[in-house]
Amino acid sequence: MAFLSSRSRYAINVIQEEDEVAGRLMRSGKEVMRMNRGDPPAYFPAPAYFIDAYIKALKERKVYYSSPAGVPELREAISRRYERLYGVKSTGEDVIVTNGVSEALLFLNSALINDGDSAVIFKPYYTQYLPDLEFYGGKAAVCDYEEDRGWEVDIDAVERSIKRSVSKDRKPKYMLITNPNNPTGTVLDKKTLSEIVEIAKNYRIFLVSDEIYDEITYNGAKFTSVSQVAKGVPHMILNGASKGYDSTGIRIGYAFVPGDDAASLSIKNEFLNLARVRLSANTPAQYAFAEAISNKNAHDRAISQMRSAIEKRVNLAAKLINESKYMDTVKPKGAFYLLPKLHMDCLKIKDDKEFVDKLLKEEDVWLTRGSGFGADNHARIVALAPEAIITQAMEKIEKFCRRHSKGA
Amino acid sequence: MAFLSSRSRYAINVIQEEDEVAGRLMRSGKEVMRMNRGDPPAYFPAPAYFIDAYIKALKERKVYYSSPAGVPELREAISRRYERLYGVKSTGEDVIVTNGVSEALLFLNSALINDGDSAVIFKPYYTQYLPDLEFYGGKAAVCDYEEDRGWEVDIDAVERSIKRSVSKDRKPKYMLITNPNNPTGTVLDKKTLSEIVEIAKNYRIFLVSDEIYDEITYNGAKFTSVSQVAKGVPHMILNGASKGYDSTGIRIGYAFVPGDDAASLSIKNEFLNLARVRLSANTPAQYAFAEAISNKNAHDRAISQMRSAIEKRVNLAAKLINESKYMDTVKPKGAFYLLPKLHMDCLKIKDDKEFVDKLLKEEDVWLTRGSGFGADNHARIVALAPEAIITQAMEKIEKFCRRHSKGA
Repeated sequence: MAFLSSRSRYAINVIQEEDEVAGRLMRSGKEVMRMNRGDPPAYFPAPAYFIDAYIKALKERKVYYSSPAGVPELREAISRRYERLYGVKSTGEDVIVTNGVSEALLFLNSALINDGDSAVIFKPYYTQYLPDLEFYGGKAAVCDYEEDRGWEVDIDAVERSIKRSVSKDRKPKYMLITNPNNPTGTVLDKKTLSEIVEIAKNYRIFLVSDEIYDEITYNGAKFTSVSQVAKGVPHMILNGASKGYDSTGIRIGYAFVPGDDAASLSIKNEFLNLARVRLSANTPAQYAFAEAISNKNAHDRAISQMRSAIEKRVNLAAKLINESKYMDTVKPKGAFYLLPKLHMDCLKIKDDKEFVDKLLKEEDVWLTRGSGFGADNHARIVALAPEAIITQAMEKIEKFCRRHSKGA
Repeated sequence: MAFLSSRSRYAINVIQEEDEVAGRLMRSGKEVMRMNRGDPPAYFPAPAYFIDAYIKALKERKVYYSSPAGVPELREAISRRYERLYGVKSTGEDVIVTNGVSEALLFLNSALINDGDSAVIFKPYYTQYLPDLEFYGGKAAVCDYEEDRGWEVDIDAVERSIKRSVSKDRKPKYMLITNPNNPTGTVLDKKTLSEIVEIAKNYRIFLVSDEIYDEITYNGAKFTSVSQVAKGVPHMILNGASKGYDSTGIRIGYAFVPGDDAASLSIKNEFLNLARVRLSANTPAQYAFAEAISNKNAHDRAISQMRSAIEKRVNLAAKLINESKYMDTVKPKGAFYLLPKLHMDCLKIKDDKEFVDKLLKEEDVWLTRGSGFGADNHARIVALAPEAIITQAMEKIEKFCRRHSKGA
């Protein structure tokens, strides 16, 4: 009788699988360039108005349990945000506050997935989508972002793929899209999104849109929220404070379910039940986030500065990558990741795992292997660091590739 | 094909099942006496040194992701706490920081429980132990606190019960004790604890001790930690900031696993993996808790004041309950709950569920039904409110019982 459960094997996170190696390097005095974690406040100090609101809640001693689904001030602020930005009518009751989108993803899978169920995810995907699904006994029905189309989706291929995964008595429990996408930087246009909504509607699959990067688009891209185009079609939006509100470490996310169809009501109620099981999210952080959302002017100033800086950093990284003969990349339109294809045929290196492992050990540059996102022989680079750091990291990567090139 | 998963039915929390009724009453202007939630900071404002440390972390803009298992400062402070209070040698690596003990309980069950596995819990139990276990496919092997022994355990009965649950190829995955116990207020003495450890050792069952109330004992009780008596026997201690550090709403708990036996190493590693899946706990709250643990003098002052006040409140509630002919209670020795037996034979009320439901609707007093803790025809009362409030609530409960008594 094994001690650990069989689901234990799915409790993995490839973004952190090099933690111990990196920890050893840092303890030995090395300065590791951490380009593995999408952590804006490590580079853009959280704005004062946000910190002040957090401090105010603490001075008022708001460190007691809050309602499991979140403090009313935050739930209502989030509801108003969707009206202001996307023209969606809702109430605070349509919002369940979670410990980051991470917890919302666990809620989603635990609420819907029985052993053997499937769910549609788009590849390359955020690392946690697949293990979170498998953890609860599910398996993925995969659609693709296509690299040779600049990481856009081919909607006919998507429909064919969905069709294959639907039978008379079984169909995927949900379809999860990510817009903007981590790790490809894809921003889906309104037409494509509408077509995806249409597919969800026709095959009666619950649609989930992870929009945690909704305010981080650039290079001319225009963001459309699924909440704008899915009216009447059962759906859920995942979002939170981490990225656009520059505060990953306060762990406040949310699920927004504005519909009153049976599926929406059912999953909203189950998310509330799941929230009750873990009692409450961090109370003072919720008040801080409520203020951050409500203080439109202060937030707009902060996000527009951050967006411009990110655009420059991402574009610099893309340019340097494409100057290398060892890799090439699509230029992202949103989020702050690049997912270059590694030209393995030029390198005396087995695969992307060996690439990132050796790169960390030899050059102290910490990336994440693409295979963790479903993209073999790619690597994910987080482009949040200042331009000088990005330049230096790319020089180290180039030096590393030259040293391991087949010609060397 | 049902939309929700079959495990969804176990996402329940009886402490919050009256939320909607209570919410309606409050919105209609009623002042509900909330004696349902064990929430110290709602009555004892968190001490200044703790709030100041939290604010300091925020001013330093520590709102980025922290290490999944917790910031080193906190993990080391917790390790030192166990040396200082209980003489246990350990390192920060033996600590995994969680989003409250609630998350640690979910980690425990998801790490160990396969469909059909069992675990030993002691009845009456904290409400979440049973659904958390069932959520992951497990079932309970129940031992008892015995009311006619003043809610103490009969160790021979415990051993007989464990023996029955062990067969050649199957045995319980863990044995979970709670000391001091919620909801009975039992504080297990050192001899009984040593006997429980001996049973865990003999039957090779992983021992888990939820010690979240370890600094809240009174009426002459002396607390012993399982970490003091279980050296060499695989075990895990659950604890956190919520109760003794008066800050439920910051959601910082931890699992402390000081052993280096195979089971301890295995579960410690799996808890780390599970922590990585949800990325990080709230970062500034961890720094605040590290300071709260390290600032021994300030904490000792705060906890001894709180402990004296709780002792008075619990003893007042016990006295008033035992003056009523409609209920009687054991006098607790730890935590801040009372679990009176309701004399249903004197009442025109079906069961404890109807009792708490009608009491809330008719008298605005919010208790929790005992059946949610495995104690039918009991009710749990939280005795954290000031004495005047406890007196007023008990008067309302007495009036309610008289109105519904069979003689009325």
